[in-house]
Amino acid sequence: MPTYPLYEEYVSKMRKIADVKHAMAVLQWDEETYLPPDGASIRGQQMATLSEISHELFVDQKLGNLLNELRSENGLVEKEKKNVELTSEDYNKNKKYESSFVRKLSETTSRAYHAWISARRKQSFDEFAKPLSDLVDLKRQESDILGYKSHPYDAHLNEFEKGATVAWLDSVFKEITVPLKELLDKITTAKQVDDQFLNQHFDKDAQWKFGLEILKDMGFNFESGRQDISEHPFTTSFNSKDVRITTRINEKNFTGMTWSCIHEGGHALYEQGLSIDEYGLPAGEACSLGIHESQSRLWENNIGRSRAFISLILPKLQHYFPQLNGIEVDALFKAINKVSPSLIRTEADELTYHFHVMIRYELEKELIAGNLQTNDIPAYWNDAYQRYLGVKAPNDASGCLQDIHWSHGSFGYFPTYSLGSFYAAQFYSVMEKENKSLEIEIQQGDFAFVNRWLKSNVYNAGRLVTSTELCNKITMEPLNLRYFIEYLETKYTQVYGLR
Amino acid sequence: MPTYPLYEEYVSKMRKIADVKHAMAVLQWDEETYLPPDGASIRGQQMATLSEISHELFVDQKLGNLLNELRSENGLVEKEKKNVELTSEDYNKNKKYESSFVRKLSETTSRAYHAWISARRKQSFDEFAKPLSDLVDLKRQESDILGYKSHPYDAHLNEFEKGATVAWLDSVFKEITVPLKELLDKITTAKQVDDQFLNQHFDKDAQWKFGLEILKDMGFNFESGRQDISEHPFTTSFNSKDVRITTRINEKNFTGMTWSCIHEGGHALYEQGLSIDEYGLPAGEACSLGIHESQSRLWENNIGRSRAFISLILPKLQHYFPQLNGIEVDALFKAINKVSPSLIRTEADELTYHFHVMIRYELEKELIAGNLQTNDIPAYWNDAYQRYLGVKAPNDASGCLQDIHWSHGSFGYFPTYSLGSFYAAQFYSVMEKENKSLEIEIQQGDFAFVNRWLKSNVYNAGRLVTSTELCNKITMEPLNLRYFIEYLETKYTQVYGLR
Repeated sequence: MPTYPLYEEYVSKMRKIADVKHAMAVLQWDEETYLPPDGASIRGQQMATLSEISHELFVDQKLGNLLNELRSENGLVEKEKKNVELTSEDYNKNKKYESSFVRKLSETTSRAYHAWISARRKQSFDEFAKPLSDLVDLKRQESDILGYKSHPYDAHLNEFEKGATVAWLDSVFKEITVPLKELLDKITTAKQVDDQFLNQHFDKDAQWKFGLEILKDMGFNFESGRQDISEHPFTTSFNSKDVRITTRINEKNFTGMTWSCIHEGGHALYEQGLSIDEYGLPAGEACSLGIHESQSRLWENNIGRSRAFISLILPKLQHYFPQLNGIEVDALFKAINKVSPSLIRTEADELTYHFHVMIRYELEKELIAGNLQTNDIPAYWNDAYQRYLGVKAPNDASGCLQDIHWSHGSFGYFPTYSLGSFYAAQFYSVMEKENKSLEIEIQQGDFAFVNRWLKSNVYNAGRLVTSTELCNKITMEPLNLRYFIEYLETKYTQVYGLR
Repeated sequence: MPTYPLYEEYVSKMRKIADVKHAMAVLQWDEETYLPPDGASIRGQQMATLSEISHELFVDQKLGNLLNELRSENGLVEKEKKNVELTSEDYNKNKKYESSFVRKLSETTSRAYHAWISARRKQSFDEFAKPLSDLVDLKRQESDILGYKSHPYDAHLNEFEKGATVAWLDSVFKEITVPLKELLDKITTAKQVDDQFLNQHFDKDAQWKFGLEILKDMGFNFESGRQDISEHPFTTSFNSKDVRITTRINEKNFTGMTWSCIHEGGHALYEQGLSIDEYGLPAGEACSLGIHESQSRLWENNIGRSRAFISLILPKLQHYFPQLNGIEVDALFKAINKVSPSLIRTEADELTYHFHVMIRYELEKELIAGNLQTNDIPAYWNDAYQRYLGVKAPNDASGCLQDIHWSHGSFGYFPTYSLGSFYAAQFYSVMEKENKSLEIEIQQGDFAFVNRWLKSNVYNAGRLVTSTELCNKITMEPLNLRYFIEYLETKYTQVYGLR
């Protein structure tokens, strides 16, 4: 058996790289949760060092040789072959980057991030324009480094969702726009929903305890994870036995915290469900960002905003917040599903959310193609918001400066949010078909079927299949927007009594 | 100026190593404060990987060559020369270790640590004996690797306190034993102190707030650090702009938390006082463990247990804990300075504490010399506690298993605790001489002089001098035990009305 020592050597190298990457994740988590203000500058340097070391470990020629040898081995089982194949792809991609480019990108990103912070504070895009322009230039170079077939933006889309292209996403967004607009029109002219009772004082500690209770009900394992407070909620994983969620609390409205807990809980269950035996290997990683987002949205929306789920949590809510006594299931169900075009993506409802994404997608496409200059972003942005949503930002902070993504150099990320919603609806329709009592189980707080289904269909697949392959495997067809549209139509018919 | 590029290159390499080491420190801090239970095993592996990387970076031949070139440079200023010289010493020391030995030591330590945890739970030394014996064997090998002149234990003492030897410490402990015993005898026959009022219920949150207030008063900068809860209090630093303290709270007695805050605060002020410009270089590091401990003990004992300090904090204490109303300064001063031979080192008073250290020092000396087998530790321990302190542990958990140090492979560490007390008394006597109103200032909560004095005399020196050189520089003489003995005599004369 000459194979195994080689494969073990490969595993051990990959684990070492994973250790470094996850050490970075710990530093990042600490930065967002507990870092004292003065600690930020050296922390940035410490993370850059780890990032450099991790890159150096990954482009080591010895790893390349090892991968080559393993690819011509016949003794590997299927999963091992796949691990090696995907790592080889990663290796070849990493090899394309020269150290000097990596360093320049890291420095430029850091400058852009600080400019964004400052510009946002001043609520004006101006001082972000130049650093962002420098970053876009590098991103355009990166398109060439990574390579693409039709559109330079494809190279970046592929980074976040393997196989995604402009051609495909153009057709996806085109197809979804009309039914979304029609639905929005109907809702706008229907009887409006009262959600005023959501705006009261909700005690911080009670919200915190309620959030933990929901996470526990969902199946989040607190022996293998924890929740903390940060400015922006996020989920991070240091391995499947240590998954961290963060949240934030607004005492004037409990819904943000509650559905953010459920959303991050969905991400976290995915991470806790990955195989610890495959730590550091593709088989132990999440499939894609789109699929990751499908997990958070399936829990947050398909389950979390369903009438059944509202029935489940209302008595608990009333226990923690007696001010909600007298509110009925139907009223809460409608209130938390209210549709209303607005300025801020992260606060948008399930319908108008996708217009926020489309605006960013179109804008990024033009930026990376070189058809739009960063100076022109505010005008482009405001015009698009007027056209798509009929709203106007009073300043850039609630306009084109609202998202952190560009300042991090993440172009091509936003579409995965929409893909997440679409995949979630498609997966959920299969779950509903397979389990006719799903609604009743949810109402009773019994998530055993959901947990089992996601584990065997999604978590266990790791990154050994693409999102399209996974979707085909689970639903017997590729992404089909019909499921999402039907899901929204059914929901808003209930909420707004449409037709 | 051909010098500077080379020196800059050296600085940049050292910073990179420091980044990795401090990333490890973040992981360690997280492990002791927030890590969920299941996260421990992979966390251990992640830290081992960083430790390996840091070692590899430090023994890189390129660094060796660079150091050689720099040592023959004439253009360096004194501080730079010193940095290079000390780094060369570190480099040569690191080079002595073969990777296989480092790995074996790390694995054996990990096994010993887990065996200690388990043995401690069972309150019996038995299952720790073999893993500890394996570790001692490696430590004896390490004596040879590191080299020593007279006693193999010297090699380990030198690791924690440069220049410390068995010959020197034997004489130190011999000199201090007689006056300590005489003082203890006098105290034992004097009228005893009433500290019963310390044992009441003290609210957790109030203790937490009081601890933060004291730290702030001492000059701890919360913009550059923070405090959290852990099982065992400790201080760690990721750079002088991010220094973390931990504490624990016992609601049945507030004194543990209070003086532990002051103790860790002393360590933390030292770390915050180190030069950020010299990050990663000897000039930006603490002098030695003994000097570090002098800082925590100077604050905890010389200042924190003084009558002046008690006057300062009593009204604050009574604000947080009204149950202390009616207690007078004198009563609290006496209660928190009560002397009583006991079983647990960390809970010992300032006098008997040093017998705890001596017992461990003697025991380690025999272990490393090969004169004592680990199986015989419990009997040796119990006999020594009977002889030195007249107490007997009901089981090994409160006997020879009480400290974590051996399970970490830290032999030679304990003496630095005593040295810290001795240096603190000697330094404090200079401060008192230089500032006749020191006592009044403390009583008024004015620590400006103390902060300034420690900064200019201790913090600014970094690791560019040894502890002996520092002591000579500050006090015009080497370590002199007279100061510590006089300090105790004065204190206990006040507390017990001796003579």
